Amino acid sequence: MVNRVQQLIIAAAIGLTAVAAIVHAASPHSTATFLIAAVALAALAALVGQSIEQVGEHLSPGATGLLQSSLGNLPELFVGIFALNDGLYNVVRAALVGSVLGNTLLVFGIAALTGGLRHGPQRFPSESPRMIGTLLLLSVAALLVPTLAMRLHTPAAPHVNALSDASAIILLAVYALSIPFWLRGGATTSPTNEQGALPLRTAAGLLALGSLGAALVSAWFVGALENATKSLGLSQTFTGLVIVAIASNAVENAGGVRFALRARADYAVSTILNSPLQVALFLTPALVLASRFIGPTDLTLVFPTLQVAALAVAAIVVVVVVYDGEYIWLEGVALIGLYCILAAAFWWG
Amino acid sequence: MVNRVQQLIIAAAIGLTAVAAIVHAASPHSTATFLIAAVALAALAALVGQSIEQVGEHLSPGATGLLQSSLGNLPELFVGIFALNDGLYNVVRAALVGSVLGNTLLVFGIAALTGGLRHGPQRFPSESPRMIGTLLLLSVAALLVPTLAMRLHTPAAPHVNALSDASAIILLAVYALSIPFWLRGGATTSPTNEQGALPLRTAAGLLALGSLGAALVSAWFVGALENATKSLGLSQTFTGLVIVAIASNAVENAGGVRFALRARADYAVSTILNSPLQVALFLTPALVLASRFIGPTDLTLVFPTLQVAALAVAAIVVVVVVYDGEYIWLEGVALIGLYCILAAAFWWG
Amino acid sequence: MVNRVQQLIIAAAIGLTAVAAIVHAASPHSTATFLIAAVALAALAALVGQSIEQVGEHLSPGATGLLQSSLGNLPELFVGIFALNDGLYNVVRAALVGSVLGNTLLVFGIAALTGGLRHGPQRFPSESPRMIGTLLLLSVAALLVPTLAMRLHTPAAPHVNALSDASAIILLAVYALSIPFWLRGGATTSPTNEQGALPLRTAAGLLALGSLGAALVSAWFVGALENATKSLGLSQTFTGLVIVAIASNAVENAGGVRFALRARADYAVSTILNSPLQVALFLTPALVLASRFIGPTDLTLVFPTLQVAALAVAAIVVVVVVYDGEYIWLEGVALIGLYCILAAAFWWG
Repeated sequence: MVNRVQQLIIAAAIGLTAVAAIVHAASPHSTATFLIAAVALAALAALVGQSIEQVGEHLSPGATGLLQSSLGNLPELFVGIFALNDGLYNVVRAALVGSVLGNTLLVFGIAALTGGLRHGPQRFPSESPRMIGTLLLLSVAALLVPTLAMRLHTPAAPHVNALSDASAIILLAVYALSIPFWLRGGATTSPTNEQGALPLRTAAGLLALGSLGAALVSAWFVGALENATKSLGLSQTFTGLVIVAIASNAVENAGGVRFALRARADYAVSTILNSPLQVALFLTPALVLASRFIGPTDLTLVFPTLQVAALAVAAIVVVVVVYDGEYIWLEGVALIGLYCILAAAFWWG
Repeated sequence: MVNRVQQLIIAAAIGLTAVAAIVHAASPHSTATFLIAAVALAALAALVGQSIEQVGEHLSPGATGLLQSSLGNLPELFVGIFALNDGLYNVVRAALVGSVLGNTLLVFGIAALTGGLRHGPQRFPSESPRMIGTLLLLSVAALLVPTLAMRLHTPAAPHVNALSDASAIILLAVYALSIPFWLRGGATTSPTNEQGALPLRTAAGLLALGSLGAALVSAWFVGALENATKSLGLSQTFTGLVIVAIASNAVENAGGVRFALRARADYAVSTILNSPLQVALFLTPALVLASRFIGPTDLTLVFPTLQVAALAVAAIVVVVVVYDGEYIWLEGVALIGLYCILAAAFWWG
Repeated sequence: MVNRVQQLIIAAAIGLTAVAAIVHAASPHSTATFLIAAVALAALAALVGQSIEQVGEHLSPGATGLLQSSLGNLPELFVGIFALNDGLYNVVRAALVGSVLGNTLLVFGIAALTGGLRHGPQRFPSESPRMIGTLLLLSVAALLVPTLAMRLHTPAAPHVNALSDASAIILLAVYALSIPFWLRGGATTSPTNEQGALPLRTAAGLLALGSLGAALVSAWFVGALENATKSLGLSQTFTGLVIVAIASNAVENAGGVRFALRARADYAVSTILNSPLQVALFLTPALVLASRFIGPTDLTLVFPTLQVAALAVAAIVVVVVVYDGEYIWLEGVALIGLYCILAAAFWWG
């Protein structure tokens, strides 16, 4: 049985992808292609997220967790690969940072605000969110090191490519070692059997279809990006940090907001924080290593300093907010305010 | 019925204001005027704080909270406005930062030290302090963004005035949205009916009188500041960060220390942390916007980098200290030590 | 009765010291002397740590705590003094930073990983670890101020020697005031009567012998350091940060790992975090003041910026990990990963 929200997502994903295909065929580098592909990508990301949950209904919680943590950021991975291929390194970096900021500050802020307004102060078992928050802080800390080594003109600065690769490999090793943790359901993020489950075959089919669509639309989206942002007067950094991040990742995490609205604060927090953890621990180092084989030159872990500072601020702030196992709507307001100020700071590039 | 402490504060405020008036009339820019006005201002700030509490006895806890959060920093607001008018931007910025440092490190350190020594390790219901601490961390994080954007030479640097205004407006919006939180008694900071209450009329009269006095004395204090600090050999930064901050704000928060001495750790923490939160969320952005209309040029949210670093350190440290709902005297010692080292670093300007 | 581990440590300490003496006599500046002295120093540090625990069996918990907190870092103190004397300021600073990093990230990571793997998620009474963690964060914050004042080109920069001395004195004052806390058993780090106790005379003898040995071997170790690191191709920073720190301090804290393996998470955390706290609060300021009398010039609290950033990251991260009174093996993995990335960043100096 497919419920309302699922129907809506499927219909939107199919419809928007079709429109995007037509517009792309007509004028591949136009602003229209860029905008429609962005919306289609968001719908496809939501579809992929939904389908993973549906497939998960037929798996153990551990396997579901693993599936979510490996495929959950698939649309973002596609965008990253196409952007690497086009040499849009600023966009790739900004999109990775923006994905962490968007989830920890904006999406989580919206969840806390709406959930808190509807249900009052939300208490939740904080063990799992605390663990995810702590791991996020640790990964972000590790992620910062190459940038600091570079920007502080340390003796490591001339060797930053090597340091960056070493850091990426260590982060991926931590990710690999964390797989048993997810398999044991260390951070289950979706309640089993809460929605009418689709048959496994249908769910897997939707997942494959959504992924394929995301891959196609990502290519169109990235292809139109350079031209469109220029004519829209947007900087590459702002585009990556806000638009790409929200389209390819944040919308998918709207699921977290739905949990918050249903007073399932624990699932809300786990869902929303899981994604930036995967971005820090897997997606970012994976793209660094992938850039060895894709695109004109290498992506390093050297980010613009303000982006790195924003990452550190977001990681610290979100740990403090979730650590006590409680959020109120006012924390949501403050998180959203912080996101807006950061986004404003990146407006000029 | 007016108790001893109240009598003392009223007498000190009246007496010192009278002396300050005479000295000001005799030599408005003298060191003597500066010093006496500083002490008078501290007494008036204490009087304003007391009167708000007394008025609050006749109001709901929520209305009291709102009153405290809106009028509690009135003396500091006066000083800020007069200093803006005289173009003493370094003093204004340093006083705002110093007010946060003074409360989170020095006053809280003294409260933890004295309360902890007298009553042993103090446990307190940590929900409200934790919330205030988290909001303080979020506001400080937001406050840092324009400075970081400027100092890190990002593309936003040439537009820092616009970014600063945008940030100020967002912070004020968060403040406005937080009013319902204070109205619901989100962080009540004074125990009702603990002291003999003054009649509403008397209390309101004292509040009006204290505010008027604070406005007058602020003007004298700021008028004498430039000359006096020069002849005392104090830098403007140190003056703002330590002397102005303590006179206009920290002494008022001595109330928090009194709570600590009476083993009311919860009120102590809420009282002491409420004030820096208002400084970050309301007073600072309000002065930024007010500078559009007052003084020779505009105040921006671009602070000296070390001040911003000190703010970040203080916010993180205080969250960690209050988060577990317990403090011991040794934490107080360490907080005071940190304050002294920071004050020393600002000694030269 | 001496148990197996104790016998092993005593034998290793004696044997390695003897070998180091011979090699030192043969070629005092050789790489062999450096390497063997490093291993001997680690064994002697372990012996000193063990003997303190054994002496502690005959004392009150408070006196034991004091003994640990004053003599626990003795080997590191010796190395620091000899290195000061030879003017190896980079090595001294890096060793102090590395000692904090080594304990908070590497040793604690190993303890969490091994203890967590063997016994599952470890819960522990978090009051004492939380207090130590908070004090560590406060001390590290205080320690950073002179470096920030210098590197941010504040008006205090030309006076950084005075600021550094003032900070060192304040830190030592906080340390002195903390002695009653340790005396009251504020952070007892070893379980009484868990091992067969040595007679007091034997234990004290071993302590004296171990200390004497550590002093001797430290001198040989430092004497060979400059030459050996050159021929090994190691930078002075990496040598201090990793090799000196691990030899003179981290191995001693292997005791913490043993506690973790016996599912005594509380002792593990207290033991491991106590040492960096002493380094920040006592050893570092003591060496700063001692440098007035030892060596060619003065040691200041101005560290290379990346080292200071690493300290801040380690302090924040470790507070977050211990604050909830629980650790899991995956946190251990992430801590070790972070340590490796930091060590890599210091590889080139």
